[in-house]
Amino acid sequence: MKIGIIGSGIVAQTLGTKLVQLGHDVALGTRDPKKLDDKKGFGGSLGEWLAKVGEKTNGKANVVSFRDAAAHGELLINATHGQNSVDALKLAGDDALAGKVLIDVSNELDPSKGMPPRVGASQDSCLAERIQAAFPKLKVVKSLNTINCGVMVDPKALAGGDHSVFVSGNDAPAKAAVGELLKQFGWTDILDLGDLSSARGPEMYMALWLRLWGATKTGAINIKVVR
Amino acid sequence: MKIGIIGSGIVAQTLGTKLVQLGHDVALGTRDPKKLDDKKGFGGSLGEWLAKVGEKTNGKANVVSFRDAAAHGELLINATHGQNSVDALKLAGDDALAGKVLIDVSNELDPSKGMPPRVGASQDSCLAERIQAAFPKLKVVKSLNTINCGVMVDPKALAGGDHSVFVSGNDAPAKAAVGELLKQFGWTDILDLGDLSSARGPEMYMALWLRLWGATKTGAINIKVVR
Repeated sequence: MKIGIIGSGIVAQTLGTKLVQLGHDVALGTRDPKKLDDKKGFGGSLGEWLAKVGEKTNGKANVVSFRDAAAHGELLINATHGQNSVDALKLAGDDALAGKVLIDVSNELDPSKGMPPRVGASQDSCLAERIQAAFPKLKVVKSLNTINCGVMVDPKALAGGDHSVFVSGNDAPAKAAVGELLKQFGWTDILDLGDLSSARGPEMYMALWLRLWGATKTGAINIKVVR
Repeated sequence: MKIGIIGSGIVAQTLGTKLVQLGHDVALGTRDPKKLDDKKGFGGSLGEWLAKVGEKTNGKANVVSFRDAAAHGELLINATHGQNSVDALKLAGDDALAGKVLIDVSNELDPSKGMPPRVGASQDSCLAERIQAAFPKLKVVKSLNTINCGVMVDPKALAGGDHSVFVSGNDAPAKAAVGELLKQFGWTDILDLGDLSSARGPEMYMALWLRLWGATKTGAINIKVVR
Protein backbone atom coordinates (compact mmCIF):
# COMPACT_ATOMS: atom_id res chain seq x y z
CA MET A 1 0.00 0.00 0.00
CA LYS A 2 1.14 3.57 -0.63
CA ILE A 3 1.44 5.31 2.73
CA GLY A 4 2.15 8.97 3.33
CA ILE A 5 3.54 9.98 6.72
CA ILE A 6 3.16 13.59 7.79
CA GLY A 7 6.16 14.19 10.02
CA SER A 8 9.79 13.15 10.04
CA GLY A 9 10.90 12.78 13.68
CA ILE A 10 11.58 9.56 15.51
CA VAL A 11 7.92 8.46 15.50
CA ALA A 12 7.60 9.03 11.75
CA GLN A 13 10.94 7.35 11.07
CA THR A 14 10.12 4.32 13.23
CA LEU A 15 6.70 3.87 11.63
CA GLY A 16 8.23 4.41 8.19
CA THR A 17 10.91 1.78 8.73
CA LYS A 18 8.38 -0.79 9.89
CA LEU A 19 6.00 -0.04 7.03
CA VAL A 20 8.81 -0.40 4.48
CA GLN A 21 9.79 -3.72 6.11
CA LEU A 22 6.18 -4.83 5.73
CA GLY A 23 6.41 -4.11 2.00
CA HIS A 24 4.57 -0.81 1.87
CA ASP A 25 5.61 2.14 -0.31
CA VAL A 26 6.33 4.95 2.11
CA ALA A 27 6.77 8.68 1.59
CA LEU A 28 7.94 10.58 4.66
CA GLY A 29 6.75 14.18 4.51
CA THR A 30 8.84 16.97 5.99
CA ARG A 31 8.86 20.75 5.87
CA ASP A 32 11.98 20.96 3.74
CA PRO A 33 12.85 17.64 2.11
CA LYS A 34 16.20 18.98 0.92
CA LYS A 35 17.47 19.18 4.51
CA LEU A 36 18.56 15.56 4.73
CA ASP A 37 21.42 16.21 7.15
CA ASP A 38 19.56 17.91 10.03
CA LYS A 39 19.20 15.77 13.12
CA LYS A 40 15.50 15.22 13.89
CA GLY A 41 15.03 15.49 17.63
CA PHE A 42 15.32 12.00 19.13
CA GLY A 43 15.61 10.55 15.60
CA GLY A 44 18.63 10.65 13.32
CA SER A 45 18.77 12.74 10.14
CA LEU A 46 16.53 11.85 7.21
CA GLY A 47 19.66 11.10 5.19
CA GLU A 48 20.58 8.47 7.76
CA TRP A 49 17.03 7.11 7.66
CA LEU A 50 17.13 6.83 3.88
CA ALA A 51 20.54 5.19 4.02
CA LYS A 52 19.33 2.69 6.59
CA VAL A 53 15.98 1.89 5.06
CA GLY A 54 15.62 3.32 1.61
CA GLU A 55 18.45 1.92 -0.41
CA LYS A 56 17.49 -1.69 0.16
CA THR A 57 13.89 -1.20 -0.84
CA ASN A 58 13.79 -0.43 -4.56
CA GLY A 59 12.73 3.14 -4.06
CA LYS A 60 9.91 2.30 -1.64
CA ALA A 61 11.13 4.78 0.96
CA ASN A 62 11.28 8.45 0.10
CA VAL A 63 11.56 11.80 1.82
CA VAL A 64 9.30 14.41 0.26
CA SER A 65 7.30 17.52 1.15
CA PHE A 66 4.18 17.37 3.34
CA ARG A 67 2.12 17.92 0.18
CA ASP A 68 3.82 15.17 -1.79
CA ALA A 69 3.56 12.73 1.12
CA ALA A 70 -0.17 13.40 1.36
CA ALA A 71 -0.60 13.05 -2.41
CA HIS A 72 1.40 9.80 -2.38
CA GLY A 73 -0.53 8.05 0.33
CA GLU A 74 -3.63 5.94 -0.09
CA LEU A 75 -3.44 5.92 3.71
CA LEU A 76 -1.95 8.76 5.74
CA ILE A 77 -0.37 8.94 9.19
CA ASN A 78 0.01 12.07 11.27
CA ALA A 79 3.23 11.67 13.23
CA THR A 80 4.04 15.33 13.83
CA HIS A 81 4.24 16.94 17.26
CA GLY A 82 0.64 17.56 18.24
CA GLN A 83 1.25 21.26 18.65
CA ASN A 84 2.25 21.45 14.96
CA SER A 85 -0.17 18.94 13.44
CA VAL A 86 -2.84 21.24 12.03
CA ASP A 87 -0.21 23.56 10.54
CA ALA A 88 1.64 20.66 8.92
CA LEU A 89 -1.60 19.32 7.47
CA LYS A 90 -2.41 22.79 6.11
CA LEU A 91 0.92 22.70 4.29
CA ALA A 92 -0.07 19.29 2.90
CA GLY A 93 -3.20 20.92 1.54
CA ASP A 94 -6.87 20.07 1.55
CA ASP A 95 -6.86 18.66 -2.00
CA ALA A 96 -4.14 16.11 -1.22
CA LEU A 97 -5.88 15.03 1.99
CA ALA A 98 -9.50 14.89 0.87
CA GLY A 99 -11.26 11.56 1.24
CA LYS A 100 -8.29 9.76 2.75
CA VAL A 101 -7.92 7.88 6.02
CA LEU A 102 -5.51 9.60 8.41
CA ILE A 103 -4.22 7.71 11.42
CA ASP A 104 -3.46 10.32 14.06
CA VAL A 105 -0.80 8.89 16.38
CA SER A 106 0.25 12.21 17.86
CA ASN A 107 -0.17 13.88 21.23
CA GLU A 108 -0.30 17.51 22.17
CA LEU A 109 2.29 17.76 24.95
CA ASP A 110 3.70 21.05 26.19
CA PRO A 111 6.97 20.80 28.12
CA SER A 112 7.40 24.59 28.36
CA LYS A 113 6.20 24.72 31.98
CA GLY A 114 8.37 21.86 33.23
CA MET A 115 8.05 18.11 33.55
CA PRO A 116 5.96 16.16 33.11
CA PRO A 117 4.73 17.97 29.98
CA ARG A 118 1.20 19.35 30.06
CA VAL A 119 -1.38 17.34 28.13
CA GLY A 120 -3.36 19.47 25.67
CA ALA A 121 -6.41 17.19 25.51
CA SER A 122 -9.29 18.00 27.80
CA GLN A 123 -12.92 17.26 28.49
CA ASP A 124 -13.88 19.71 25.77
CA SER A 125 -11.73 18.69 22.85
CA CYS A 126 -8.72 16.75 21.72
CA LEU A 127 -6.23 16.96 18.92
CA ALA A 128 -7.87 14.32 16.74
CA GLU A 129 -11.14 16.24 16.84
CA ARG A 130 -9.39 19.51 16.01
CA ILE A 131 -7.75 17.88 13.00
CA GLN A 132 -11.09 16.45 11.90
CA ALA A 133 -12.76 19.85 12.28
CA ALA A 134 -10.02 21.59 10.28
CA PHE A 135 -10.16 18.96 7.48
CA PRO A 136 -13.74 17.68 7.30
CA LYS A 137 -13.04 15.50 4.24
CA LEU A 138 -10.34 13.51 6.04
CA LYS A 139 -11.35 10.30 7.78
CA VAL A 140 -9.43 10.72 11.03
CA VAL A 141 -8.79 7.64 13.17
CA LYS A 142 -7.01 8.12 16.47
CA SER A 143 -4.75 5.24 17.40
CA LEU A 144 -1.33 4.32 18.78
CA ASN A 145 -0.89 7.63 20.65
CA THR A 146 -0.83 5.76 23.98
CA ILE A 147 2.44 3.96 23.24
CA ASN A 148 5.97 5.00 22.40
CA CYS A 149 7.04 4.37 18.84
CA GLY A 150 9.22 1.34 19.56
CA VAL A 151 6.22 -0.48 21.02
CA MET A 152 3.83 0.89 18.36
CA VAL A 153 5.51 -1.09 15.60
CA ASP A 154 6.60 -4.11 17.63
CA PRO A 155 4.05 -4.86 20.33
CA LYS A 156 5.21 -8.46 20.62
CA ALA A 157 8.58 -7.28 21.94
CA LEU A 158 6.77 -6.19 25.13
CA ALA A 159 5.27 -9.07 27.16
CA GLY A 160 4.66 -11.05 23.96
CA GLY A 161 2.16 -8.45 22.77
CA ASP A 162 -0.35 -9.12 25.56
CA HIS A 163 -1.55 -5.50 25.89
CA SER A 164 -4.07 -3.19 24.29
CA VAL A 165 -4.37 -0.50 21.64
CA PHE A 166 -7.33 1.76 20.90
CA VAL A 167 -9.08 3.13 17.83
CA SER A 168 -11.50 6.06 17.74
CA GLY A 169 -13.13 7.53 14.65
CA ASN A 170 -16.36 8.50 12.95
CA ASP A 171 -15.97 6.22 9.89
CA ALA A 172 -16.30 2.47 10.42
CA PRO A 173 -14.48 1.35 7.23
CA ALA A 174 -11.62 3.72 8.09
CA LYS A 175 -11.34 2.16 11.55
CA ALA A 176 -11.38 -1.30 9.97
CA ALA A 177 -8.51 -0.31 7.63
CA VAL A 178 -6.50 0.96 10.57
CA GLY A 179 -7.25 -2.25 12.44
CA GLU A 180 -5.74 -4.23 9.55
CA LEU A 181 -2.55 -2.20 9.70
CA LEU A 182 -2.38 -2.64 13.48
CA LYS A 183 -2.62 -6.40 12.98
CA GLN A 184 0.30 -6.23 10.54
CA PHE A 185 2.31 -4.57 13.31
CA GLY A 186 1.41 -7.47 15.59
CA TRP A 187 -1.43 -6.00 17.64
CA THR A 188 -4.04 -8.48 18.80
CA ASP A 189 -6.12 -6.59 21.39
CA ILE A 190 -7.59 -3.68 19.41
CA LEU A 191 -10.39 -1.88 21.26
CA ASP A 192 -12.83 0.33 19.34
CA LEU A 193 -13.73 3.15 21.75
CA GLY A 194 -16.37 4.76 19.52
CA ASP A 195 -16.56 7.98 17.56
CA LEU A 196 -13.75 10.50 17.37
CA SER A 197 -14.81 12.28 20.57
CA SER A 198 -13.82 9.07 22.39
CA ALA A 199 -10.20 9.94 21.51
CA ARG A 200 -10.34 12.37 24.45
CA GLY A 201 -9.93 9.23 26.58
CA PRO A 202 -6.61 7.98 25.18
CA GLU A 203 -5.34 11.54 24.76
CA MET A 204 -6.10 12.45 28.40
CA TYR A 205 -4.61 9.11 29.47
CA MET A 206 -1.24 10.56 28.50
CA ALA A 207 -1.32 12.35 31.86
CA LEU A 208 -1.16 8.90 33.46
CA TRP A 209 1.30 7.50 30.89
CA LEU A 210 3.77 10.27 31.71
CA ARG A 211 3.63 9.33 35.42
CA LEU A 212 3.98 5.63 34.61
CA TRP A 213 7.05 6.51 32.57
CA GLY A 214 8.40 8.38 35.60
CA ALA A 215 7.60 5.51 37.98
CA THR A 216 8.92 2.70 35.81
CA LYS A 217 11.84 4.68 34.32
CA THR A 218 11.09 3.31 30.87
CA GLY A 219 8.94 4.37 27.94
CA ALA A 220 8.66 0.76 26.81
CA ILE A 221 5.39 0.31 28.66
CA ASN A 222 1.75 -0.09 27.80
CA ILE A 223 -1.52 -1.02 29.43
CA LYS A 224 -3.52 -4.16 29.03
CA VAL A 225 -7.24 -3.73 29.49
CA VAL A 226 -8.14 -6.58 31.80
CA ARG A 227 -11.80 -7.65 31.61
CA MET B 1 -7.47 -0.96 62.85
CA LYS B 2 -10.10 1.72 63.40
CA ILE B 3 -11.14 3.04 60.01
CA GLY B 4 -13.43 5.99 59.33
CA ILE B 5 -15.12 6.18 55.95
CA ILE B 6 -16.40 9.55 54.79
CA GLY B 7 -19.34 8.70 52.56
CA SER B 8 -22.12 6.14 52.58
CA GLY B 9 -22.93 5.23 48.97
CA ILE B 10 -22.09 2.00 47.21
CA VAL B 11 -18.34 2.65 47.23
CA ALA B 12 -18.31 3.40 50.96
CA GLN B 13 -20.54 0.41 51.71
CA THR B 14 -18.45 -1.98 49.62
CA LEU B 15 -15.21 -0.79 51.20
CA GLY B 16 -16.82 -0.93 54.63
CA THR B 17 -18.04 -4.48 54.17
CA LYS B 18 -14.61 -5.67 53.05
CA LEU B 19 -12.82 -3.88 55.88
CA VAL B 20 -15.17 -5.40 58.45
CA GLN B 21 -14.56 -8.84 56.91
CA LEU B 22 -10.83 -8.20 57.28
CA GLY B 23 -11.38 -7.57 60.98
CA HIS B 24 -11.19 -3.79 61.06
CA ASP B 25 -13.45 -1.58 63.18
CA VAL B 26 -15.37 0.55 60.68
CA ALA B 27 -17.43 3.71 61.12
CA LEU B 28 -19.31 4.80 58.02
CA GLY B 29 -19.87 8.55 58.07
CA THR B 30 -22.97 10.08 56.55
CA ARG B 31 -24.68 13.46 56.58
CA ASP B 32 -27.58 12.29 58.74
CA PRO B 33 -26.86 8.96 60.47
CA LYS B 34 -30.47 8.70 61.63
CA LYS B 35 -31.67 8.22 58.05
CA LEU B 36 -31.04 4.50 57.92
CA ASP B 37 -33.86 3.74 55.51
CA ASP B 38 -32.94 6.03 52.58
CA LYS B 39 -31.66 4.20 49.54
CA LYS B 40 -28.12 5.36 48.77
CA GLY B 41 -27.78 5.74 45.01
CA PHE B 42 -26.51 2.45 43.60
CA GLY B 43 -26.13 1.10 47.12
CA GLY B 44 -28.86 -0.11 49.44
CA SER B 45 -29.94 1.75 52.57
CA LEU B 46 -27.57 2.04 55.50
CA GLY B 47 -30.03 0.00 57.56
CA GLU B 48 -29.66 -2.81 55.05
CA TRP B 49 -25.89 -2.42 55.17
CA LEU B 50 -25.86 -2.63 58.95
CA ALA B 51 -28.16 -5.65 58.87
CA LYS B 52 -25.92 -7.40 56.34
CA VAL B 53 -22.60 -6.55 57.89
CA GLY B 54 -22.94 -5.04 61.29
CA GLU B 55 -24.82 -7.50 63.38
CA LYS B 56 -22.34 -10.29 62.86
CA THR B 57 -19.36 -8.23 63.83
CA ASN B 58 -19.62 -7.44 67.53
CA GLY B 59 -20.28 -3.79 66.91
CA LYS B 60 -17.37 -3.33 64.52
CA ALA B 61 -19.60 -1.73 61.89
CA ASN B 62 -21.37 1.51 62.67
CA VAL B 63 -23.13 4.34 60.88
CA VAL B 64 -22.27 7.72 62.35
CA SER B 65 -21.87 11.38 61.38
CA PHE B 66 -19.01 12.58 59.18
CA ARG B 67 -17.42 14.09 62.28
CA ASP B 68 -17.72 10.90 64.34
CA ALA B 69 -16.39 8.77 61.47
CA ALA B 70 -13.35 11.05 61.18
CA ALA B 71 -12.83 11.02 64.95
CA HIS B 72 -13.15 7.21 65.02
CA GLY B 73 -10.61 6.44 62.33
CA GLU B 74 -6.90 5.96 62.77
CA LEU B 75 -7.07 5.74 58.99
CA LEU B 76 -9.66 7.59 56.91
CA ILE B 77 -11.15 6.94 53.47
CA ASN B 78 -12.88 9.53 51.32
CA ALA B 79 -15.57 7.68 49.39
CA THR B 80 -17.93 10.57 48.70
CA HIS B 81 -18.82 11.84 45.24
CA GLY B 82 -15.88 13.98 44.21
CA GLN B 83 -18.09 17.00 43.73
CA ASN B 84 -19.07 16.83 47.41
CA SER B 85 -15.80 15.69 48.98
CA VAL B 86 -14.45 18.99 50.32
CA ASP B 87 -17.84 19.92 51.76
CA ALA B 88 -18.20 16.53 53.47
CA LEU B 89 -14.72 16.82 54.94
CA LYS B 90 -15.53 20.32 56.20
CA LEU B 91 -18.48 18.78 58.06
CA ALA B 92 -16.08 16.22 59.53
CA GLY B 93 -14.01 19.10 60.81
CA ASP B 94 -10.35 20.00 60.78
CA ASP B 95 -9.73 18.82 64.35
CA ALA B 96 -11.02 15.31 63.67
CA LEU B 97 -8.97 15.05 60.47
CA ALA B 98 -5.68 16.56 61.57
CA GLY B 99 -2.61 14.35 61.28
CA LYS B 100 -4.45 11.38 59.82
CA VAL B 101 -3.93 9.46 56.61
CA LEU B 102 -6.85 9.86 54.20
CA ILE B 103 -7.15 7.51 51.24
CA ASP B 104 -8.99 9.45 48.56
CA VAL B 105 -10.71 6.93 46.28
CA SER B 106 -13.14 9.39 44.73
CA ASN B 107 -13.49 10.98 41.31
CA GLU B 108 -15.02 14.27 40.29
CA LEU B 109 -17.42 13.26 37.52
CA ASP B 110 -20.14 15.56 36.21
CA PRO B 111 -22.95 13.82 34.30
CA SER B 112 -25.03 17.02 33.95
CA LYS B 113 -23.97 17.59 30.33
CA GLY B 114 -24.63 14.04 29.16
CA MET B 115 -22.68 10.81 28.94
CA PRO B 116 -19.90 10.01 29.42
CA PRO B 117 -19.65 12.26 32.49
CA ARG B 118 -17.12 15.06 32.35
CA VAL B 119 -13.93 14.47 34.31
CA GLY B 120 -13.11 17.30 36.71
CA ALA B 121 -9.37 16.63 36.91
CA SER B 122 -7.16 18.61 34.59
CA GLN B 123 -3.57 19.53 33.89
CA ASP B 124 -3.82 22.22 36.53
CA SER B 125 -5.28 20.42 39.50
CA CYS B 126 -7.11 17.36 40.68
CA LEU B 127 -9.46 16.52 43.51
CA ALA B 128 -6.81 14.93 45.74
CA GLU B 129 -4.74 18.10 45.56
CA ARG B 130 -7.78 20.27 46.33
CA ILE B 131 -8.55 18.14 49.39
CA GLN B 132 -4.90 18.40 50.51
CA ALA B 133 -4.96 22.16 50.03
CA ALA B 134 -8.19 22.53 52.02
CA PHE B 135 -6.89 20.32 54.86
CA PRO B 136 -3.11 20.80 55.06
CA LYS B 137 -2.78 18.62 58.16
CA LEU B 138 -4.30 15.57 56.44
CA LYS B 139 -1.95 13.11 54.76
CA VAL B 140 -3.84 12.55 51.53
CA VAL B 141 -3.02 9.46 49.47
CA LYS B 142 -4.82 9.01 46.18
CA SER B 143 -5.54 5.41 45.32
CA LEU B 144 -8.20 3.03 43.98
CA ASN B 145 -10.05 5.75 42.04
CA THR B 146 -9.26 3.96 38.76
CA ILE B 147 -11.38 0.91 39.56
CA ASN B 148 -15.01 0.28 40.39
CA CYS B 149 -15.70 -0.69 43.97
CA GLY B 150 -16.29 -4.38 43.34
CA VAL B 151 -12.78 -4.72 41.89
CA MET B 152 -11.27 -2.36 44.51
CA VAL B 153 -11.89 -4.81 47.33
CA ASP B 154 -11.51 -8.05 45.38
CA PRO B 155 -8.88 -7.63 42.67
CA LYS B 156 -8.29 -11.37 42.48
CA ALA B 157 -11.83 -11.87 41.16
CA LEU B 158 -10.70 -10.16 37.93
CA ALA B 159 -8.05 -12.10 35.97
CA GLY B 160 -6.63 -13.52 39.19
CA GLY B 161 -5.57 -10.06 40.30
CA ASP B 162 -3.01 -9.60 37.52
CA HIS B 163 -3.56 -5.85 37.10
CA SER B 164 -2.36 -2.60 38.63
CA VAL B 165 -3.30 0.00 41.21
CA PHE B 166 -1.66 3.36 41.89
CA VAL B 167 -0.73 5.46 44.91
CA SER B 168 0.13 9.16 44.91
CA GLY B 169 0.91 11.28 47.94
CA ASN B 170 3.35 13.61 49.61
CA ASP B 171 4.00 11.49 52.71
CA ALA B 172 6.00 8.27 52.27
CA PRO B 173 4.85 6.53 55.50
CA ALA B 174 1.23 7.35 54.59
CA LYS B 175 1.70 5.74 51.18
CA ALA B 176 3.28 2.71 52.84
CA ALA B 177 0.28 2.36 55.18
CA VAL B 178 -2.09 2.53 52.23
CA GLY B 179 0.02 -0.05 50.42
CA GLU B 180 -0.44 -2.43 53.38
CA LEU B 181 -4.22 -2.04 53.19
CA LEU B 182 -4.16 -2.60 49.42
CA LYS B 183 -2.25 -5.84 50.01
CA GLN B 184 -4.94 -6.93 52.46
CA PHE B 185 -7.49 -6.42 49.68
CA GLY B 186 -5.37 -8.67 47.45
CA TRP B 187 -3.48 -6.13 45.33
CA THR B 188 -0.03 -7.22 44.24
CA ASP B 189 0.99 -4.65 41.59
CA ILE B 190 0.99 -1.36 43.49
CA LEU B 191 2.70 1.47 41.59
CA ASP B 192 3.89 4.58 43.44
CA LEU B 193 3.43 7.44 40.96
CA GLY B 194 5.06 10.11 43.13
CA ASP B 195 3.79 13.13 45.01
CA LEU B 196 0.14 14.13 45.16
CA SER B 197 0.30 16.12 41.92
CA SER B 198 0.86 12.76 40.18
CA ALA B 199 -2.77 11.95 41.06
CA ARG B 200 -3.71 14.11 38.07
CA GLY B 201 -2.65 11.07 36.01
CA PRO B 202 -5.07 8.50 37.46
CA GLU B 203 -7.81 11.13 37.81
CA MET B 204 -7.53 12.20 34.14
CA TYR B 205 -7.35 8.51 33.16
CA MET B 206 -11.02 8.32 34.11
CA ALA B 207 -11.73 9.87 30.70
CA LEU B 208 -10.32 6.67 29.20
CA TRP B 209 -11.91 4.41 31.80
CA LEU B 210 -15.35 5.76 30.93
CA ARG B 211 -14.78 4.89 27.24
CA LEU B 212 -13.44 1.44 28.17
CA TRP B 213 -16.60 0.91 30.18
CA GLY B 214 -18.62 1.89 27.10
CA ALA B 215 -16.60 -0.36 24.80
CA THR B 216 -16.54 -3.42 27.05
CA LYS B 217 -20.04 -2.93 28.53
CA THR B 218 -18.78 -3.73 31.99
CA GLY B 219 -17.36 -1.76 34.87
CA ALA B 220 -15.49 -4.83 36.10
CA ILE B 221 -12.35 -3.81 34.23
CA ASN B 222 -8.93 -2.54 35.08
CA ILE B 223 -5.60 -1.92 33.45
CA LYS B 224 -2.39 -3.84 33.92
CA VAL B 225 0.74 -1.79 33.43
CA VAL B 226 2.85 -4.00 31.19
CA ARG B 227 6.59 -3.31 31.38
